[in-house]
Amino acid sequence: MHWSRWGDPAHAATLPPNAIGMLELAFGPASPRPAMDVATVQLPPIELSDELLDALRGVVGVEHVDTGDDARVLHTGGKSTPDLLALRGGDAGAAPDAVLRPADHGEVLALVTLCAERRIAVVPYGGGTSVVGGLAAAHEGFSGVVAIDLGRLDGLVGVDDVSSTAVLQAGVSGPRAEELLGEHGLTLGHFPQSFEFATIGGFAATRSSGQSSSGYGRFDAMVVGLKVATPQGTWELGAAPASAAGPDLRQMVLGSEGTLGIVTEVTLAVRAAPATALYETWRFPSFADGATAMRTLTQDGINPTVLRLSDETETSLNLAKPESIGADSPGGALMVCGYEGAAERVARMRSEVGATLESLGGTPLGVEDGQQWAQGRFSAPYLRDALLDEGVLVETLETATFWGNLDHLYAEVKAALEGALSAQGTNPIVLCHISHVYRTGASLYFTVACRETDDPRGQWYAAKAAASEAIVDAGGTITHHHAVGRDHKQWYAEEIGPIGATVLRAVKQAVDPAGVLNPGVLIP
Amino acid sequence: MHWSRWGDPAHAATLPPNAIGMLELAFGPASPRPAMDVATVQLPPIELSDELLDALRGVVGVEHVDTGDDARVLHTGGKSTPDLLALRGGDAGAAPDAVLRPADHGEVLALVTLCAERRIAVVPYGGGTSVVGGLAAAHEGFSGVVAIDLGRLDGLVGVDDVSSTAVLQAGVSGPRAEELLGEHGLTLGHFPQSFEFATIGGFAATRSSGQSSSGYGRFDAMVVGLKVATPQGTWELGAAPASAAGPDLRQMVLGSEGTLGIVTEVTLAVRAAPATALYETWRFPSFADGATAMRTLTQDGINPTVLRLSDETETSLNLAKPESIGADSPGGALMVCGYEGAAERVARMRSEVGATLESLGGTPLGVEDGQQWAQGRFSAPYLRDALLDEGVLVETLETATFWGNLDHLYAEVKAALEGALSAQGTNPIVLCHISHVYRTGASLYFTVACRETDDPRGQWYAAKAAASEAIVDAGGTITHHHAVGRDHKQWYAEEIGPIGATVLRAVKQAVDPAGVLNPGVLIP
Repeated sequence: MHWSRWGDPAHAATLPPNAIGMLELAFGPASPRPAMDVATVQLPPIELSDELLDALRGVVGVEHVDTGDDARVLHTGGKSTPDLLALRGGDAGAAPDAVLRPADHGEVLALVTLCAERRIAVVPYGGGTSVVGGLAAAHEGFSGVVAIDLGRLDGLVGVDDVSSTAVLQAGVSGPRAEELLGEHGLTLGHFPQSFEFATIGGFAATRSSGQSSSGYGRFDAMVVGLKVATPQGTWELGAAPASAAGPDLRQMVLGSEGTLGIVTEVTLAVRAAPATALYETWRFPSFADGATAMRTLTQDGINPTVLRLSDETETSLNLAKPESIGADSPGGALMVCGYEGAAERVARMRSEVGATLESLGGTPLGVEDGQQWAQGRFSAPYLRDALLDEGVLVETLETATFWGNLDHLYAEVKAALEGALSAQGTNPIVLCHISHVYRTGASLYFTVACRETDDPRGQWYAAKAAASEAIVDAGGTITHHHAVGRDHKQWYAEEIGPIGATVLRAVKQAVDPAGVLNPGVLIP
Repeated sequence: MHWSRWGDPAHAATLPPNAIGMLELAFGPASPRPAMDVATVQLPPIELSDELLDALRGVVGVEHVDTGDDARVLHTGGKSTPDLLALRGGDAGAAPDAVLRPADHGEVLALVTLCAERRIAVVPYGGGTSVVGGLAAAHEGFSGVVAIDLGRLDGLVGVDDVSSTAVLQAGVSGPRAEELLGEHGLTLGHFPQSFEFATIGGFAATRSSGQSSSGYGRFDAMVVGLKVATPQGTWELGAAPASAAGPDLRQMVLGSEGTLGIVTEVTLAVRAAPATALYETWRFPSFADGATAMRTLTQDGINPTVLRLSDETETSLNLAKPESIGADSPGGALMVCGYEGAAERVARMRSEVGATLESLGGTPLGVEDGQQWAQGRFSAPYLRDALLDEGVLVETLETATFWGNLDHLYAEVKAALEGALSAQGTNPIVLCHISHVYRTGASLYFTVACRETDDPRGQWYAAKAAASEAIVDAGGTITHHHAVGRDHKQWYAEEIGPIGATVLRAVKQAVDPAGVLNPGVLIP
């Protein structure tokens, strides 16, 4: 992972030729804003005493306590646009004092115990892909801040072929999970935008949802068990696939964002790796028509593996196909349908989906664009870096609601983003897609682009606040799959209300009375 | 509901002729044990002062505070065999002082607030069908005990056709829910054994699972929102179908068994009422073969609406068809498969299921017995009363585990029940079926029958303790769909471990600091 950009520098994107012209047309002449050199980045002084560093070294070994500049910069914040803007501008104020790399659950538990005793703030670190400020612990009142990087916990603990479950360590990345499971002919089927870098532990801690959620389900629905290192000891959850034995405490750890403990192992429902995968595109006259078709499919129990619908603006920009941005578009609203499984089932599912979509006004566009979408689907964050280089602010946010409220929520959030950015003299382009569907509702994922002002972080925070107010007022959830972090806390508190906040604080106090686990994140 | 028997006295069962002979053969000569007359039942004195009763009357009105013997006896305990045995023997020691019947959420909230202020223990009362001691509040340390009967909250608050959701009040019974939703062409699809009497609020509070869970899912999976009256005020949950906004707090209320608040409304995912319903039976050479077939179906994503498999003993007794008990059986292991939906889909599902079952050794037996099962499926509890009248102890218990552990758990629990009852000189018949399946595992539901000793409650508690130890030791959950109540508390504490117990107690303390809500139930 690059310190101030997405992913692997070798895969950096350049803007397609059509896109440059489109940007000038939309936002006026370019004003490039290259990132500062990493050597000039300002790191805060290390607050941890030598004695505490030695104590930490005593747990994981000298070579696994890294206080070097490179490690600290690389573990500074996540990959939201504000996080990237800070680093690009040379500000690494959110850096931890040290990066710790424990070998196993026992070392994680020992670290958590030590940090609680000595009041050292802990940031659990998986792939570093948070886009909600989930990786910037509060420093105040602590004797220092450490990032506990779970990268060494990257193994498959075991597979139970009969039960169709697998136990994966928390530091296993998306591709590594598929590789490890693939050796057993299995797949997890979890492919979020962050797939290439994010980890099993992070997926659990943030209630991730992948692009194939229509077929494989959300990550939290795949979890049957968890092993968590807490200041109170090891917490193991998940005695059975389902149970009536009290509240489902797994659901208290899922989404807890490292504030109650560090997830070290996850037991997951897995599936046979699909023999066939096929993606196709459809055109609908409008976003509303396409949404109705998606809803009909889902409520009829017809679930293709991937189901994704761009609104008219996103369709016109070809955002589902980054390399075609700015080129001709079919117009209307573009839908991607993906089918994975045995060849016979793929064919049947495709035919069943096709019959419903045609009856509801859809026009099949064939498989070419669909296959292109599938190949390029993890590349969008690279494009953001290229746009930031050009002085174009790009960020995303997302929500979900019930079907009956979807149009309203869509209109309100879009208007809030357009209003807040236009008011700053930077008329934006606002795109949206639906990429996660349920019988009762769906997600909305917005992408926003506009020319940067002189204070792009402040510029974005104003837009984000307006959008978040609109989400709460229009009855959406403040996040469908990005999590809460620091960035959503204010609106999250409104969403769960005072009793929800009281419950969360009580659980936090019971499990982490010293308050060292990811302080400042999630808990209202 | 009858005070000491299941259900409606007009539907009381008589034992089929073959069954009497079979019982004599199995357990020796009959020794009938009729229940005492209700007039002779001993009720404890009312502890609530006149002043407190007047305060309660001030909330719900004089006519909705019932301290009469009939109401108190009827609201004593639930419908476990030990509960029935106590009442049949004239012991109503678990009776509340008064039965309160609030009209709406506001009155429930006012009652909960008043009870917390004045230290009155509260038993939330839906259908009264608990089989785990969920309806017997602790008296010690309280100024009295009231049952809050939610029977007047029996309406449909609203339907959202687009979102496919409905809001039902907590006191709505299973049949009433189907009736209310049926007027909109909808179904909930939740048909537990207790269907005819149990309520929406109770389903939520206990994480109920119905006989059609293979197709429609568990009750907790149908819940998208909850409204709860707590001592801290009204708690509303469920901003979206799914969310990454922190832990899923709905899952803290589901299964909380009235210890955190009283559920007054539930927002549920609903479905179009099925046009067609068809049930058929299959024979497998053995329980293990049938279980493998069920697992294969589920892991292949083939989900008939009902999927149920009796072990060899249950099959030989025809327990799936109460009126044929003791008659000839096809032998092997009997499977019931049910299909509900549009005619075309039912036909396709049936053909797909049939192909898999035949390939795995199943023999189709046609629809006659399946339809008979569907018609008689709520009548088993009536049969228990007829057996208790004959001096035959009958009780059930259930668990769940992952597929890879199912054989082991089955053998251990069966052996524990047989051992504990044989040791008391009462060799039992132990039957089992699988009736809830998941990709990763399944439930096991045991029915036990033997001759009563002179202390049938003590007799059963010894067997129950042995079975519960076996469940915990063999890695099952202490309950898959009956809940914890008082009867499972000891083993529940083992299942969730000390950190789980700490978390639950912290939440309880935060929401109900006076501890008045269903004291003695669930919380370790």
